[in-house]
Amino acid sequence: MLVSWVQQAAFDPPSVTVAIKHGRPAGPMIDGSKRFTLNVIGEDPSAMFKHFGKGFAPEDDAFKGLKIEPTEFGPLLLDCIAQLGCEVTQKVNVGDHDLSVAIVAAGRGTPGAKPYLHTRKSGLSY
Amino acid sequence: MLVSWVQQAAFDPPSVTVAIKHGRPAGPMIDGSKRFTLNVIGEDPSAMFKHFGKGFAPEDDAFKGLKIEPTEFGPLLLDCIAQLGCEVTQKVNVGDHDLSVAIVAAGRGTPGAKPYLHTRKSGLSY
Repeated sequence: MLVSWVQQAAFDPPSVTVAIKHGRPAGPMIDGSKRFTLNVIGEDPSAMFKHFGKGFAPEDDAFKGLKIEPTEFGPLLLDCIAQLGCEVTQKVNVGDHDLSVAIVAAGRGTPGAKPYLHTRKSGLSY
Repeated sequence: MLVSWVQQAAFDPPSVTVAIKHGRPAGPMIDGSKRFTLNVIGEDPSAMFKHFGKGFAPEDDAFKGLKIEPTEFGPLLLDCIAQLGCEVTQKVNVGDHDLSVAIVAAGRGTPGAKPYLHTRKSGLSY
């Protein structure tokens, strides 16, 4: 899934938080595995937005057609600029979202590549 | 203080999280008041970096020389592009930082103004 709200939360151990809206299928999947991969989209997000923006039925393979590398944390998307393998340590309810607090246990990146950043005009929608 | 890691965490109620390193004087202040103001720096951060980057002794007035407006959440910095009055609802320890989870209870912004964004080359330092 596409996540909008991610931040670094510690240096030691290297940690991130990710907010996932209630009702998204990825929520229970992460609750079960306690793991996820954060694939960081590069400056041109169009291919990933097109692929993940269309939505999937539960029985669909959400990664079909993408270059991936399976790992213990989930698939790395090789057309992204960085891939972080994350182990969930805490889940915190925040209003209509759940915040997964996770240690970055594995990682890979493309030196010099810049991430896609989106500044919204309002905090009332993604 | 300058904070590096902030994210939106919910729409309803509108919420943010802010990570503050252990040992920073602002940590106990927020623990005591359960409130803070998040002042969002605009595209040119140089004035705010110069002011807040120099550090303060505990007895110093950290806002001396800045245009401010006092509020129940703390001083609004009028040379910032947005000011969010936040009420802390949870504090979550994440490694060497504490994450304050807070409802945005008041806010003001400058239409069309863009925030300063900094993409670090590495997650190992601010």
